[in-house]
Amino acid sequence: MDDNYQVCFTPSGRQFKGEFGDTLLQVAQDAGVAIRSLCGGYGQCHQCWIEVSEGEHSKFGVKCDPENVSAVTRLEKQLIQDNPTYKGKRLACQSCIQGDLVIDVPEDSQEHKAYISKKNAAQTYSISSSISLIDCTLDEATLDENPSASENLIAQLTKQGVKANIDFNLLRDLQPLIHECKGNLTVAVRDSSQIVAAYPKGTHQILGAAIDIGSTTLALYVYDLKNGKLVYESSAMNPQIRFGEDLMSRVSYVMMNKGGDEKLTAAVRGKITEMLHEACENLETEWDKLLEVVLVGNPIMHHIFFGISPVELGQAPFTLSIRSWLDVDAKDLGFDLYPKTRLSFLPLIAGHVGADTAAAYLSQMDTMHTETTLLVDIGTNAEIMLSKEGKVYATSSPTGPAFEGAEISSGVRATYGAIERVRIDKDSLKVRFKVIGCDAWSDEPDYELVQMKAVGICGSGIIEAIVAFAEAGIIDQSGLFVESIAPELFSKKGNTTRFLLVDQGDKSIYIEQVDIRSIQLAKAALSAGVSILMDYLDCDHFDKILLAGAFGAHLDARYVALLDIIPTSTAEKIESVGNAAGIGASAALLDVNKKQAIIEAVDKVVKIETATEPRFQEFFVDAMKFSVSPVKQQQTKKVRRRKRAS
Amino acid sequence: MDDNYQVCFTPSGRQFKGEFGDTLLQVAQDAGVAIRSLCGGYGQCHQCWIEVSEGEHSKFGVKCDPENVSAVTRLEKQLIQDNPTYKGKRLACQSCIQGDLVIDVPEDSQEHKAYISKKNAAQTYSISSSISLIDCTLDEATLDENPSASENLIAQLTKQGVKANIDFNLLRDLQPLIHECKGNLTVAVRDSSQIVAAYPKGTHQILGAAIDIGSTTLALYVYDLKNGKLVYESSAMNPQIRFGEDLMSRVSYVMMNKGGDEKLTAAVRGKITEMLHEACENLETEWDKLLEVVLVGNPIMHHIFFGISPVELGQAPFTLSIRSWLDVDAKDLGFDLYPKTRLSFLPLIAGHVGADTAAAYLSQMDTMHTETTLLVDIGTNAEIMLSKEGKVYATSSPTGPAFEGAEISSGVRATYGAIERVRIDKDSLKVRFKVIGCDAWSDEPDYELVQMKAVGICGSGIIEAIVAFAEAGIIDQSGLFVESIAPELFSKKGNTTRFLLVDQGDKSIYIEQVDIRSIQLAKAALSAGVSILMDYLDCDHFDKILLAGAFGAHLDARYVALLDIIPTSTAEKIESVGNAAGIGASAALLDVNKKQAIIEAVDKVVKIETATEPRFQEFFVDAMKFSVSPVKQQQTKKVRRRKRAS
Repeated sequence: MDDNYQVCFTPSGRQFKGEFGDTLLQVAQDAGVAIRSLCGGYGQCHQCWIEVSEGEHSKFGVKCDPENVSAVTRLEKQLIQDNPTYKGKRLACQSCIQGDLVIDVPEDSQEHKAYISKKNAAQTYSISSSISLIDCTLDEATLDENPSASENLIAQLTKQGVKANIDFNLLRDLQPLIHECKGNLTVAVRDSSQIVAAYPKGTHQILGAAIDIGSTTLALYVYDLKNGKLVYESSAMNPQIRFGEDLMSRVSYVMMNKGGDEKLTAAVRGKITEMLHEACENLETEWDKLLEVVLVGNPIMHHIFFGISPVELGQAPFTLSIRSWLDVDAKDLGFDLYPKTRLSFLPLIAGHVGADTAAAYLSQMDTMHTETTLLVDIGTNAEIMLSKEGKVYATSSPTGPAFEGAEISSGVRATYGAIERVRIDKDSLKVRFKVIGCDAWSDEPDYELVQMKAVGICGSGIIEAIVAFAEAGIIDQSGLFVESIAPELFSKKGNTTRFLLVDQGDKSIYIEQVDIRSIQLAKAALSAGVSILMDYLDCDHFDKILLAGAFGAHLDARYVALLDIIPTSTAEKIESVGNAAGIGASAALLDVNKKQAIIEAVDKVVKIETATEPRFQEFFVDAMKFSVSPVKQQQTKKVRRRKRAS
Repeated sequence: MDDNYQVCFTPSGRQFKGEFGDTLLQVAQDAGVAIRSLCGGYGQCHQCWIEVSEGEHSKFGVKCDPENVSAVTRLEKQLIQDNPTYKGKRLACQSCIQGDLVIDVPEDSQEHKAYISKKNAAQTYSISSSISLIDCTLDEATLDENPSASENLIAQLTKQGVKANIDFNLLRDLQPLIHECKGNLTVAVRDSSQIVAAYPKGTHQILGAAIDIGSTTLALYVYDLKNGKLVYESSAMNPQIRFGEDLMSRVSYVMMNKGGDEKLTAAVRGKITEMLHEACENLETEWDKLLEVVLVGNPIMHHIFFGISPVELGQAPFTLSIRSWLDVDAKDLGFDLYPKTRLSFLPLIAGHVGADTAAAYLSQMDTMHTETTLLVDIGTNAEIMLSKEGKVYATSSPTGPAFEGAEISSGVRATYGAIERVRIDKDSLKVRFKVIGCDAWSDEPDYELVQMKAVGICGSGIIEAIVAFAEAGIIDQSGLFVESIAPELFSKKGNTTRFLLVDQGDKSIYIEQVDIRSIQLAKAALSAGVSILMDYLDCDHFDKILLAGAFGAHLDARYVALLDIIPTSTAEKIESVGNAAGIGASAALLDVNKKQAIIEAVDKVVKIETATEPRFQEFFVDAMKFSVSPVKQQQTKKVRRRKRAS
């Protein structure tokens, strides 16, 4: 009996072999078909609806019979009963292969391309590259004076005061190049100690790349290493998303699927290689001119990138495999790049505080080493650093993904069509909003013209919505809906109450009571994390509050202060520092002194684990309240010096 | 039209696709079918006779028509006319594919397995391995005290006084191992600086290998790195032989065939990998216990091993790509071994004087640094080193392969059935001989019993034959046959005169006049090379004459002296030092001090290029004479001090 069946996906046209009993989600992931899945395939997120296209498909040469897929499960029956629009559809994670299949992935279930703000491109950096280009002319070999090609080259560099070894990987092409150029070479020397590339004399542009491996988005910045000029940038969806939207789903994918870690590693490495190849092609540059790549990312992205299992990072005590700055040659990692291209990852700080945070720290180091500065990067966790009088403490707090719009009923990532701004008129309770990709507000004529439809609400949108709810009295201080204010705007969905935010017929967008609760928990977690560090550093105010990442970039500082997300914050102290991780990575790429600075600085950071802090719970409960007023009555928390339990 | 044809080889049963116009020798090489070829496919050696098996071959599903192979060439017609036994056969290098073919490779055209003397196994070495095994127990991680696994391990080693980094390649398996062993590990630290392997605590056997890459034979010795005990040895034919028997044929194969260097590299790496895998299997050891491999070989073998084109070594000024000791990780070379197994090659000395000679020097260093010592390793070239009063000079002399039995009409390598000893009765001119693989002389009854047939004559056999010829007056001082001594033993073959050495009917073995000439040229070249060094070092005698390699091992010192191969030599000063290259490689593997010693010593060796020495020709002509007498009348050459042309 043949256990291998053909599974064809539309509209992508991709085909893949699957075995009897494989879920359609697994096969789609193997086939590289991006089906929306937030939970990693555990029937939790109900996002991966697909349709089985029964019948003869001459295009694929496949006959798709009803019995070729496993029977509808109890979960699916229940979901269809709750929402009859799902009738005829299946959850890809619940449907198993029993024969040849043709599967249609509806638009709602396809992944969307990420929207990246490029407003931080005009950064300037100090330049002191790890690579020097040195011109030299080799002595002509004779029978009597005949050093090896390597000795000849090394001797020429020594004459110029450079004491460098030659890397083994150069040897293959060295002699042909010497012949071709009649001994006139330009060589690239790394860290004043190792010859890593050789070119015909007169080669003067070499490149370096900084890459921010976000769990959602990969961002690439390519620089001319000689003058620090940004020459190319691009971004792409992190392809690991098809194995689980959030980090913990990916870790559990690895735990549950043998070889899952290798798939995740291959996915991210493949995409990065592709992006670098595209960059070289666009810049009309050979691979051997791209010599340095500096990467940042959280600890799970870091471990997966290096092919180290992230499983330990999914369970206490969250032990890292390695924390320090890592330099590995492309060849050693099996990358399809110039063998001596060096891939370097900034140091991690702790089990939950990654190289992206270290890079953000590097980008703001001058401020942090001179002022009392809070640096916050909010993703699934919030990474928090606090500096005061030369001391730097770091922690992370389990905010959950609510601030990013995930685990919110109508939540979406910051993609095209996501609601990012919300205003509610206090008297009429009329809602105005703005979506990403359209400059006009929803009540302006231009909005109608572009025929934009809101696809959901993203992190900044939900925060503004909740602030607006509190200001308009739609919720009370405890976060409960005040239905009496306008009963016609509320409805029920099962047991939960929901508020109609945008009326778009059957594609209307609601905010549910549980959504308010998610944001409330996230806000309390972040606030408690900040309070813990304030407590350690005996700090009762901030000179600066720096918000890193997309969250800070999309969010109005006023709303952060109004929602009291950060204790003692006021809008004028809050500053969005953009893609601080990318900026820090670029700084470390372009300046070896910056690299050294962050290596040393990270070693001095004191890490606090919120999970073992007895006072975390106390701060958390304190911070649950929604106390919003137009003129903020900030009640400065009494911060007590707390002795560390020894 | 389909240009790809099926070519099937018998008796091996191997099949391969070939293109229209490919020679059968090329396809055989691609298919891994070892057809005897000495010249690299240029129609020079006339060894690659095969038969086209015409007709239907249901076994292969192939119909082999006469027109499926190109027409018989003029060269082949001539050879068949000279020797009708070749009728119906074709030279594989002259026959091109024009359709599907079935090719029979007769036994005479198949490669034979090399015969390796193992008598040098009982060597003892000083032990100071580059690898230390260190036991340690990691601290258990807690949420509050939670260093990364790498930091934890490094800290434990620091406590024991070892300051080592951890190699990136270990990270993948480190945390699972720590879990499995509850933190109780034994780690392997290389050069007191880098952790290269981690095992469960209590692992105490690690291995190292020494490999001699001869152009004919690969020899492998595996040692326990803790006590220096030889635990395994094996040898195999160098698979590059199918691309050309001697080194220059292989270099010209690379010059004439695009991608030829990669084929040669893949062949030798593949065989070495196979031998190491077999060793681990036989020793029931995992790959990660084999941590060090030290290799030696001549410069061409060295360059090909590392994937560097040997083309520069085939033409003046014979410039090496790299000369110094090279350490490369198995992973970096793409070897299917433990990634951190280190493959190290001893330094080369000059364009024609390789790491095998450096290793031989290392094995005899004590002698060479205290006595006036001549060290000679004879292959296609003779590598010659001379030490006197702390100075060491090296050169190589183009002896050609005659001493190895190649380019001799009945010559074969030192394989089973090769004549290695020859005696001729001065009165009766009756010939006695001994073949490899049989302890009895040809006139003893045991020889008849084993039904041994001589297949040809090897290097030592031809030298003894010529000494015997001179002693019996079969040749005169100029090397010409004295036919009048016994006309019945001489015959003509074309224009050349030949002497019947062994009467075996149609498989009789003859020595031709040109063979005498080949040995005469080889002897003169070696002698002139030695004289050049004697001249430089103002040396008129040797305390020791050390013969390295198979040539020395098979050869009777008396005959070396009698034939006056080495100026001023007497039998009692000549010593065979066996596989000195293998012994030197083993010494460098087992003792880091020896490694350091040879690195430093090689840098001090003065290299002399015979090709630019004006006096080489003079010495060469002097040494052409065959002056043999039972009591040797050695005429000490007047050695003049010659100033180096500046």
